[in-house]
Amino acid sequence: MPKKVDHEARRLEISEALWRIAGTRGLDSVSLRDVAAEADISLGRLQHYFHSRDEMLLFALRHGNRLADQRIRAHIEALTEEPSPRTVLRTCLSTMLPLDEKSRTGLLVAASYFTRAVHDETLRAEAKDGIPQLRALFTDQLRAAAERGDLAPDRATEEEAMLLISLVDGLSAYVLLDVHTPEQALRLLDLHLTNLFDAKERHADH
Amino acid sequence: MPKKVDHEARRLEISEALWRIAGTRGLDSVSLRDVAAEADISLGRLQHYFHSRDEMLLFALRHGNRLADQRIRAHIEALTEEPSPRTVLRTCLSTMLPLDEKSRTGLLVAASYFTRAVHDETLRAEAKDGIPQLRALFTDQLRAAAERGDLAPDRATEEEAMLLISLVDGLSAYVLLDVHTPEQALRLLDLHLTNLFDAKERHADH
Repeated sequence: MPKKVDHEARRLEISEALWRIAGTRGLDSVSLRDVAAEADISLGRLQHYFHSRDEMLLFALRHGNRLADQRIRAHIEALTEEPSPRTVLRTCLSTMLPLDEKSRTGLLVAASYFTRAVHDETLRAEAKDGIPQLRALFTDQLRAAAERGDLAPDRATEEEAMLLISLVDGLSAYVLLDVHTPEQALRLLDLHLTNLFDAKERHADH
Repeated sequence: MPKKVDHEARRLEISEALWRIAGTRGLDSVSLRDVAAEADISLGRLQHYFHSRDEMLLFALRHGNRLADQRIRAHIEALTEEPSPRTVLRTCLSTMLPLDEKSRTGLLVAASYFTRAVHDETLRAEAKDGIPQLRALFTDQLRAAAERGDLAPDRATEEEAMLLISLVDGLSAYVLLDVHTPEQALRLLDLHLTNLFDAKERHADH
């Protein structure tokens, strides 16, 4: 294996050890030593790949974000030939909820990272990195829905897209805390989408 | 000072030291020793009041929740004589957003606590402790609004109350990450409330 590919593969293996810890007891007080033990390598070996806890967390977070993007894309590609903008939106948003172990673990890594990011500008930039693209994607879908007559045109805005993103973030936190079951969170998301899209029907038909 | 009152007063002083750390660099890797240093007491003295980091975090979280309740109540009492249910709702919800240093710090303590609570049933029970009361309060306000004809009756539900709580939680997280300014979060909250209450007008008038 070329040296660079091998280096990346080792870093992914270590990330997976970190994720296993995140999924079972959380990362709150996890040290490089704990992760080395979980990955079954020495601390010195781990430090060859990651120089600090933050560097390791950052790598694991980026890896998790890539996996989440892939999950969203795979769910969209699995849809029927011509999914409506509303279906695309719901698919993306529900994939962001912790409905299975993988997305749950991804959110736990992100949450571990969150409290550090609040106090560190570099980490914060990374944590919010994907949000503008997500907002643009959702705004596009809302506009496409309005063009088809599925949504009131005045609801096809960046602000409505940010409401959707913020709501899913809050719903996810409450699933992790067992306030909502995953099913309840999905029903609440569907209620919000029904309110959003039905406003148009009410406006036009009643 | 009676001994019990003194004990409680000392615990509050230590909590305030913890809160100062939460507001500046976060609690992610904060030890009892760090808090003792910030409170300007010895570690042994601190351990006289708190036997573990979790006990200290729990006390500080409960204290913070009490302060947040007091802030909400003070804001409601400052309203004009007969505030509408919609005004009461907006006042409660906006007080839950990190619009000033105190609520920001309170949310940071809660966030520090969050990742531990996900993996610990006792801590989780505490973290979600206030949510049923909040849901009941908001559901009551929605029902009162519907009775006055300010809200479509089918929107006066526990589910709409949970959407409001979940949304404010997500908006708050994004303010802490600098995705939204506090003003933008407040505008998004107002957009959601307008959508909620205007659905009725659209239904009835157009």
